[in-house]
Amino acid sequence: MPRISRKGQMMPQSPIRKLVPFAEEAAKKGKSIYYLNIGQPDIKTPQIALDAVKIHSLEVLAYTRSEGSEEYRVKIANYYQKNDIFVKHDDIIVTTGGSEALLFAFGSIMDVDDEIIVPEPFYANYNGFSTASGINIVPVISKIENNFALPPIEEFEKLITPKTKAILICNPGNPTGYLYSKDEIKKLAAIVKKHNLFLIADEVYREFAYDGVTHYSIMQEEGLEDHAIMIDSVSKRYSMCGARIGCLVSRNKEVIATALKFAQARLSPPTLAQIASEAALGTPQSYFDDVIEEYVERRNILISELQKIEGVQVATPKGAFYCIVQLPIKNSDDFAQWLLEHFDVNGETVMVAPAAGFYSTPGVGLNQIRIAYVLKKESLIKAVNIIKEALKVYKD
Amino acid sequence: MPRISRKGQMMPQSPIRKLVPFAEEAAKKGKSIYYLNIGQPDIKTPQIALDAVKIHSLEVLAYTRSEGSEEYRVKIANYYQKNDIFVKHDDIIVTTGGSEALLFAFGSIMDVDDEIIVPEPFYANYNGFSTASGINIVPVISKIENNFALPPIEEFEKLITPKTKAILICNPGNPTGYLYSKDEIKKLAAIVKKHNLFLIADEVYREFAYDGVTHYSIMQEEGLEDHAIMIDSVSKRYSMCGARIGCLVSRNKEVIATALKFAQARLSPPTLAQIASEAALGTPQSYFDDVIEEYVERRNILISELQKIEGVQVATPKGAFYCIVQLPIKNSDDFAQWLLEHFDVNGETVMVAPAAGFYSTPGVGLNQIRIAYVLKKESLIKAVNIIKEALKVYKD
Ligand SMILES: Cc1ncc(COP(=O)(O)O)c(C=O)c1O
Ligand SMILES: Cc1ncc(COP(=O)(O)O)c(C=O)c1O
Repeated sequence: MPRISRKGQMMPQSPIRKLVPFAEEAAKKGKSIYYLNIGQPDIKTPQIALDAVKIHSLEVLAYTRSEGSEEYRVKIANYYQKNDIFVKHDDIIVTTGGSEALLFAFGSIMDVDDEIIVPEPFYANYNGFSTASGINIVPVISKIENNFALPPIEEFEKLITPKTKAILICNPGNPTGYLYSKDEIKKLAAIVKKHNLFLIADEVYREFAYDGVTHYSIMQEEGLEDHAIMIDSVSKRYSMCGARIGCLVSRNKEVIATALKFAQARLSPPTLAQIASEAALGTPQSYFDDVIEEYVERRNILISELQKIEGVQVATPKGAFYCIVQLPIKNSDDFAQWLLEHFDVNGETVMVAPAAGFYSTPGVGLNQIRIAYVLKKESLIKAVNIIKEALKVYKD
Repeated sequence: MPRISRKGQMMPQSPIRKLVPFAEEAAKKGKSIYYLNIGQPDIKTPQIALDAVKIHSLEVLAYTRSEGSEEYRVKIANYYQKNDIFVKHDDIIVTTGGSEALLFAFGSIMDVDDEIIVPEPFYANYNGFSTASGINIVPVISKIENNFALPPIEEFEKLITPKTKAILICNPGNPTGYLYSKDEIKKLAAIVKKHNLFLIADEVYREFAYDGVTHYSIMQEEGLEDHAIMIDSVSKRYSMCGARIGCLVSRNKEVIATALKFAQARLSPPTLAQIASEAALGTPQSYFDDVIEEYVERRNILISELQKIEGVQVATPKGAFYCIVQLPIKNSDDFAQWLLEHFDVNGETVMVAPAAGFYSTPGVGLNQIRIAYVLKKESLIKAVNIIKEALKVYKD
C-alpha cells in the first residue's frame, strides 16, 4: 500500500476532535450538551446578505476574477476607510475565508523550515496551516495573569533567527479575547522594522471590541507599508461562516502580486458568497450595536459566574467571543472527556475545548479550557453551573 | 523591505496572463475579441441549482462539516453509483473546487521534493499546485500525432525514482480532449501497483465524453482501492464554476483521514454552493443530452474548419471542450500577442492560449495553441476564419 506523506502524518487534529465521539455518545444516551467549544456564532446573518443571493439573476454561475470581483473589492476598501484603514481595492485579494488568506500569506513569504513567531495561546489552525506550508511556529508565551497581553518585546527578540520571516498576531485574540493596544502594536511595528520581518495580523474579530475600546489595526500604523499583512473574514463579522469569504490586505505590492499567483492557481473565490458578502457591507450599524450588546452581556455574565467558582481564574476578554479559563485541575483533556462521559446535572452537560491545543509549547495550558460565548445567556449560566458542580466531584 | 519567499517567486503565472493587458488594450481600441482561451463555459447553470439557493430558509449561514454535509455526500455517492462507481459517502471529502481537492491530494501523499509523473500537455495549474506544495512534476510527453493518447508505459517506468509518489492523469484531458481507454487505465493500474504508487485521476470532465464512448474511471478498476484518488468538481459538469465545489474520492482510508485533516484546518467548504450543488444532482438527463449535443456540434465544426487551413494539425478530441492545435508558426506566444495587437478581420480578432504553458518540458509546444470551444458555433466559425486569415499574413 502506498504511503501517505510525512506532512500528512504531522497535520494536527483539531483540539476538540478527540472529544467528538464522546459528545456523540453522550447525545445518543439522551444527555443535552451545551457546546462551549465552537466558534460558530448563533447570531443571525444580516437579512440583507441572505436576500442578496435570492434576488440575483445569474444564468451562469461563473468564476469571478481570482482576486475577487472588482465591485466587491472597491466596496471592501470603502468599508476599511470608514474604519480609518486607508487601503485601495488593489491592496486586497478576496479569499475563500480568512483560512485561505492565511495560507496565501504563509506561502508568499515563507519557504520550508522558515519560522514565524506567534504569541501563544493562538488559534489552533495556525498549526495546520504551518504544517501544510512546511514552516515552523515559534511560540512566545502570553500569560493569563496579564490577561494575555503582548509578552515583553525582548521575548520576541530572543527568538529571532535568520529563519524568522514574520510575527503573527490575532487581534482581538482567539482564544484569549485580548485586544492589543496602540502601544503594543507600535512595539511590534518597531521590532519588525528593525529585523526586516513581516507582521501578519489576523483581524477577523475586528468588529468585536468591547467596553468602548477602539480596535487599532496594523494597517493604521505608519511606516509598516512594506511589512503589514492583514487577514480578514466575513465569517464572524456578519455571522456568515459558511460563506467562506475573507481577504488578504497589504500595501506591499510584491506580497499582493505573489498572493495573486496562489489565488490564480485556484481560479476564483466562491461567487454566490461574494454576492452575499458584498450585500453584507450594507448591514445597518444597529445590527452591530445589537450584536455587541449581546456579546458584552454574555461575556459579563460568563465571567462573573466563572469568578464565583473557587479556584477558577479567568482573564477578562476585551474582544472576540472567547475566553481562557484556568481550572483547579491537572488535565483539562481528561476533564473535558469526563464531563461528556460521566457527568451531568439533570441530564445536561457541557463540551469545552481543552486549551493545550492552543499552545505550541508542550505541557503548557493543561489546566485551562477555552469557552466560546456563542450561546444565549441562560444557557451560559446553566453551563457554568455544570462546570461548578463538576469541579466539586471531579478527581484528577 | 522584507522579502517574499522563493516558493512565491517560483509560483507560475497562468499561460494567458501575459496576454491579458494586450486583450484589454485591444478591447479599449474597439476590437471585438473571440475568447478561445478560457475554460468558463457559456452553458446555462441548471435552473434547479440556481433556484435552490433562492428558496433556502437559512437564518445563520453556518459552517458545514469540514468533509462536507452528510446529506450532500450521500447524494454524491449515489450519483457515482449511477455511473458505475461504487463508493460510499465516507470515501468522499467535499472540497472548494477540484482545485482544493488537488491540493489536498498533493499534501496528503507527497513531501517536499517528491515527484509526480504527469503526461504533458497538462492542465497548467498543476504547476501552481505543485510549486505551492513544494513537489516536482516530472512530465512524460504525449503527442499530437497520436491524439495525445497515453504514452508507452515504458516511458513512465523510465522516470520512476525513489522520490516518485504518484502518477497524475486528467481524463478526459484539458488541454488535449483525450479520453483514456479502459485498456490504458489498466496499464496505469498495473504500473502503480507494481511500483506502489498512487494514481490520481482528475475526472472533472467525466460527463463530457463524445461519440458514444463511455468514460472509464480509475474508481472502476478493481485492485486499485489503495492507490486510486479521484478528483472531481461541479464546475464544468453543471456549468457552475463559481460555486467552488469539488471533491476528493478514495477508498484508501488513510488518504481520506489525512485529507480530512487538511479540510479541518480550513474549516468548511462553501455552504450556499453546497446547497446549489446538492440540488444540481437532480438535473434532468435532458440537460446533459442537450449540452453534449451542443459540444459535439461545436467540436465538429471547429475541427473541420481548422482542418481546412493549410499547415494546421489538430487532434480530434473525444471529451472535455478543449483541443490543441498545431500551427505553421514558430512561436505561439508571439502569435497570440500579435493577434491582439496587430490583427483583425472587420474589427474582430481572437484570443488563444499559447500551448507552451501546458508543457513542462522547455521548448515543447511552442507552435501549438489551445482552443476551448465554449463559444457558439457561429462565433467559432468566425474565430477560425480569423486564425486562417491571420496565418496568411503573420511573419514569425
Ligand atoms: C482567529 C481566527 N482566524 C481565522 C479564522 C478562519 O475563519 P474563516 O476561514 O471562516 O474566515 C478563525 C475561525 O474561527 C479564527 O478564529
Ligand atoms: C483539468 C482541470 N482540473 C481541475 C480544474 C479546477 O476546477 P475547479 O477548481 O473549478 O473545480 C479545472 C478547471 O478548469 C480543470 O480544467
